[in-house]
Amino acid sequence: MICKKLMLGVALLLAVTFVNAQSTDKVDGYALWFSNTEVATAATHPTGFYLEGKSDTRAIITAELQDGLSNLFGTEIKRQRKVSKGILLLITPQDKLAANYLKSGELDKLEEDGFLLKKENGMMVIAANTEIGLLYGTFHYLRLLRTGEQFPVRLEERPKFDRRILNHWDNLDRTVERGYAGRSLWQWDELPSKVDERYQEYAKANASVGINGTVLNNVNANPMILSEEYLIKVKSLADVFRPYGLKVYLSINFSSPAQLGGLPTSDPLDEQVIEWWQQKVAAIYKEIPDFGGFLVKANSEGLPGPQDFGRTHAEGANMLADALAPYHGIVMWRAFVYNPTEEDRAKQAYNEFLPLDGQFRKNVIVQVKNGPVDFQPREPFSPLFGRMQNTTLMPELQVTQEYLGFSNHLVYLGTLFKEFLDADTYAKGRNTPVSSISDGTVFKDSITAIAGVANIGSDPNWCGHHFAQSNWYAYGRLAWNHQLPAHKIAAEWLKQTFTTDQQFVNAMSRVMMESREATVNYMTPLGLHHLMGWGHHYGPEPWCAVPGARPDWMPSYYHKADINGIGFNRSSTGSNATAQYFDPLKSMYDNPQLCPEEYLLWFHHLPWDYTLHNGKTLWTELCYRYSEGVDQVKVFQDVWRTMKGKVDEQRYQEVESKLETQLKEASWWRDACLLYFQTFSQQPIPSELARPVHQLEDLKKLKFDMKHHN
Amino acid sequence: MICKKLMLGVALLLAVTFVNAQSTDKVDGYALWFSNTEVATAATHPTGFYLEGKSDTRAIITAELQDGLSNLFGTEIKRQRKVSKGILLLITPQDKLAANYLKSGELDKLEEDGFLLKKENGMMVIAANTEIGLLYGTFHYLRLLRTGEQFPVRLEERPKFDRRILNHWDNLDRTVERGYAGRSLWQWDELPSKVDERYQEYAKANASVGINGTVLNNVNANPMILSEEYLIKVKSLADVFRPYGLKVYLSINFSSPAQLGGLPTSDPLDEQVIEWWQQKVAAIYKEIPDFGGFLVKANSEGLPGPQDFGRTHAEGANMLADALAPYHGIVMWRAFVYNPTEEDRAKQAYNEFLPLDGQFRKNVIVQVKNGPVDFQPREPFSPLFGRMQNTTLMPELQVTQEYLGFSNHLVYLGTLFKEFLDADTYAKGRNTPVSSISDGTVFKDSITAIAGVANIGSDPNWCGHHFAQSNWYAYGRLAWNHQLPAHKIAAEWLKQTFTTDQQFVNAMSRVMMESREATVNYMTPLGLHHLMGWGHHYGPEPWCAVPGARPDWMPSYYHKADINGIGFNRSSTGSNATAQYFDPLKSMYDNPQLCPEEYLLWFHHLPWDYTLHNGKTLWTELCYRYSEGVDQVKVFQDVWRTMKGKVDEQRYQEVESKLETQLKEASWWRDACLLYFQTFSQQPIPSELARPVHQLEDLKKLKFDMKHHN
Repeated sequence: MICKKLMLGVALLLAVTFVNAQSTDKVDGYALWFSNTEVATAATHPTGFYLEGKSDTRAIITAELQDGLSNLFGTEIKRQRKVSKGILLLITPQDKLAANYLKSGELDKLEEDGFLLKKENGMMVIAANTEIGLLYGTFHYLRLLRTGEQFPVRLEERPKFDRRILNHWDNLDRTVERGYAGRSLWQWDELPSKVDERYQEYAKANASVGINGTVLNNVNANPMILSEEYLIKVKSLADVFRPYGLKVYLSINFSSPAQLGGLPTSDPLDEQVIEWWQQKVAAIYKEIPDFGGFLVKANSEGLPGPQDFGRTHAEGANMLADALAPYHGIVMWRAFVYNPTEEDRAKQAYNEFLPLDGQFRKNVIVQVKNGPVDFQPREPFSPLFGRMQNTTLMPELQVTQEYLGFSNHLVYLGTLFKEFLDADTYAKGRNTPVSSISDGTVFKDSITAIAGVANIGSDPNWCGHHFAQSNWYAYGRLAWNHQLPAHKIAAEWLKQTFTTDQQFVNAMSRVMMESREATVNYMTPLGLHHLMGWGHHYGPEPWCAVPGARPDWMPSYYHKADINGIGFNRSSTGSNATAQYFDPLKSMYDNPQLCPEEYLLWFHHLPWDYTLHNGKTLWTELCYRYSEGVDQVKVFQDVWRTMKGKVDEQRYQEVESKLETQLKEASWWRDACLLYFQTFSQQPIPSELARPVHQLEDLKKLKFDMKHHN
Repeated sequence: MICKKLMLGVALLLAVTFVNAQSTDKVDGYALWFSNTEVATAATHPTGFYLEGKSDTRAIITAELQDGLSNLFGTEIKRQRKVSKGILLLITPQDKLAANYLKSGELDKLEEDGFLLKKENGMMVIAANTEIGLLYGTFHYLRLLRTGEQFPVRLEERPKFDRRILNHWDNLDRTVERGYAGRSLWQWDELPSKVDERYQEYAKANASVGINGTVLNNVNANPMILSEEYLIKVKSLADVFRPYGLKVYLSINFSSPAQLGGLPTSDPLDEQVIEWWQQKVAAIYKEIPDFGGFLVKANSEGLPGPQDFGRTHAEGANMLADALAPYHGIVMWRAFVYNPTEEDRAKQAYNEFLPLDGQFRKNVIVQVKNGPVDFQPREPFSPLFGRMQNTTLMPELQVTQEYLGFSNHLVYLGTLFKEFLDADTYAKGRNTPVSSISDGTVFKDSITAIAGVANIGSDPNWCGHHFAQSNWYAYGRLAWNHQLPAHKIAAEWLKQTFTTDQQFVNAMSRVMMESREATVNYMTPLGLHHLMGWGHHYGPEPWCAVPGARPDWMPSYYHKADINGIGFNRSSTGSNATAQYFDPLKSMYDNPQLCPEEYLLWFHHLPWDYTLHNGKTLWTELCYRYSEGVDQVKVFQDVWRTMKGKVDEQRYQEVESKLETQLKEASWWRDACLLYFQTFSQQPIPSELARPVHQLEDLKKLKFDMKHHN
């Protein structure tokens, strides 16, 4: 075993060196936020570093430091055999020298994944309880150097969520649902015999921002993932990820016992079914002793689930949880449920799950999308957060831009994630935001977790758009520490990915910070939502009406435009979705005058001549917002053009080309929505705004071609 | 007496004719909203009108109809001696023919001032319980015609407030405090011997929008107003106003007994003082039997009051109220009190008056400014509304633009008034807005009232700016019916004042609706306030620091800008002014995330890099808002220029010239505030925005010259 581990260590070392060499020759984005290899000037460099012992993780740390520091300081900085002044010391309590450099109990608060940075006795010290903690500390130190920050006198960091998970909606045929960066990373056909080197890069990128779990396959799960054939492939990935602290989870299909196991039923209370799952779980843990657990989409959008057998979500989840419990595995059970009934779709997850509060096992976490509908450019937070007080909830964020222009639009989601995490639920009075509801602060959950739906594929630059990498990065950083400001994350990502040039960082972080609001403006301003084309969710189709399709998948279900006005009345005079929130939110949302205007048409159907706070009518303001969105993208383009020469030509050109597309499509959005809604409002577009450049009838004929976009 | 009345009637008839003739020859704005004399096309005209009896008011109605209808339809329409089909019938229950045309109890709901319009038996009928009600109905009918509306099948109108009052801050020397339209209308030196014809025009304008009271003199009152010499002058004005339903009120100085009466004290519990007031009131009512009552500013900004003698506001007000009660007079006692103490100025009126709730006589109304500070471009509503539940409150609005660019800036205040009146106080749960708190709906007050500080002077066009007339008009219309939408009032004012041309009305009503928000943007966006120059309140002086001046009159008291951020912390961690509001407002205002961004810096001190909902930092958003304000004025100017030819050349040029000034000063505001705040934020103005055209040091040297502006 030692021999094998050493070999892996050497292999990793080579791989890391290879990447860094590549990043200086060819800047195609493959190197992610390790692209910028400028030499650090501000900081003093250590004379070397000391780290005792051998392990895969320690080999990774060694390689990262040796390579990273040497590049950063332009001089070779090596691992030393002895501790001396001026050195960087990495240490855990299990190390031989621990007693010399760590006080008793000094690391108690850090738990498993935390780390301590301190300056002591003329040394810089990185300390952690575990090797993975040391790895996180190493990445943090390198990040400080690469973003021009000083080594702190003393800094303790500990993640806010225990489980910081990516959800890949990757199918076994290597298509990716809602993926816009090429095929799935996982080359199932080659696995386990060929292990692509990119898997390590993936694991490193995740570890560098603190992500410690990955669900490999789509929530619309193929039962085959649990077959012996695939479990061996999964194991080979888990082996690569393990030294990076990245655990593997799987999405499972609830009818696997029948479909894969050949049982007559998948009823969760059936003895045979229970036993089938117990054996399956045992088989998984035999191969992957640190397997994370299952993610389940059940009785949702046509997928099988316990309700097919007259059982509740809780009964289904608990059966799986019992099978996983002996191995400390968890079940993440999605609350994304809705049916085409009379009831407002936005209310259904709440209605269906709240009665089950308190019925779930301790190792079940209910995974709730940030908003009550579905990853729209803007939604209020899901009211389950704060209401479901006796169940552990985990937020599900979408990193991939399903409704936000795919990988063609520059949309930094740090602001969207923060808006959600910072949203005050008032569950226990003021200052009980979603973040402290879900990170265990308010309800003392024994396990805490957060999920982000990945935007990663096999495109050279991983995410399709160079700036989409920032969303992967921001998700990880916020999963580690949701208190980080979005603009700080944007700036540190820019510095590591492009250049620390202050003018560049200032200008482009401002573009990033505004980008999501610009998209809301040109797509779905003032609380509008789901105006996207049916199925693909790209481009404007507010008129879309597919005969026989589910009404709750059609835009008119959401915008409800007519000659009287526009918007979904979710107030107490309508669907009363507002009642699912705590006061003062309930009262605010219920009253069009108090309702934040960014949610106005989410909660209210209002006349076209309704007057907004700024004195404009609703129709006029809609015209202004759509136009402003287009203007903002123009500014983004202008700003980017002044960056020519500050960044490498390849990425400059690729981003420039994407911005051209975005600008074209922003005006497509504006024209389509305004011309269509104008058929109801019957009012002119204010003369001071740009005229539509399209005809409504032409826009309606436009067919979205997946091949151009995916 | 009959003879005298008849003569007055003839005089009025001549005056009205004169005005209308003038308005076609010379359009200088003197004709107010009677300027547009286009011929009505849509409506069918009555064959004549029937109105029995004789009185000053009936003579006015006759003149208005004869002149108005003849002009409107381009054919002479006369008062008839008999009722016939096709006629316009005006009738009150006291009239001889009442039994033929009114059902028993049909007018019961109309009370004193209301009116009924109905089509019946081939006639158009205007009915009311009083002659003044008939006059209001007549003006309403003429307004319908002049704005292109049909005569309704049935319409009942009744004012929301009993007393709809203008407050003139006119001094006896004919200067006007915060007046920007020339000298006071009241020619005290000529009165009572010479009665200017303009007094009738003034009364007519007020009656046409339902205003039924006027306080002639400044709240900073000269005791001389109560001298015998002046009371005779006041009486002569009251006589002119009476047939228009306009009652006279006076502002009194609380130390009048000492200053005017020569008593050793003005203590309200002193027997001599009480008797002095009783005699004074008797003397007033002897001359003016329908005298309205007193307006009192006491113990406020240095004025005398009951606290000078150890008495409370209630004791002071009640003493006056007792003197007035036998004559049905009222006391309007202002709650505008604050002292330069440690306590937040915004909290003081509430703190001082709430303990007195329930202690005031029935004929005392506490007059409360719309906001808790002082007529800023935007303030949250005063928390006294809703909290003071056992005292009748009346709103005080400012029609004159003390803090809104004087008569140089086009700022339509209909939106400001509505924002305030519609503001939900939550005093009795949702849907208890300021309007129903103060109009008697919620608390069943026996008297209801509203006041507007007048913007009227002796300039040819009355208000200085042609568009400032719309604020007088809007105040009156809202005092009559606070449910009218601001844009409807703007459109009807435009049609009557300029032209019914649809393109003109649409474009200019949009300009009007946005104008106040534009001003907030270029003066005091995001909840900033009181950045105006000291004393005169014109132009930006955020840096103003006058040695020895009251700190609560200096801008830095309000903006509190420093290197850490900007804004007044009135949250629970600051002055806790938020606690004066009912939930959910209290919780909303207290939380920067929930606080409406238009009040953000009113309630919070926030860092320069605080992130707003749109992803911009506070500093960047301030830059954007100030720039947007300037851009909006540019648009107003562009729109106005397309109106050339649609309106008469004189008013076109005068408005054009004012807009030029406004644009210049909007950029003065933007530059001054941004350059000054930049000395704290130390951040650049975003490159996509226009550069300042001024230097901060030059702006600081700029001295405001009253002569240019007043």
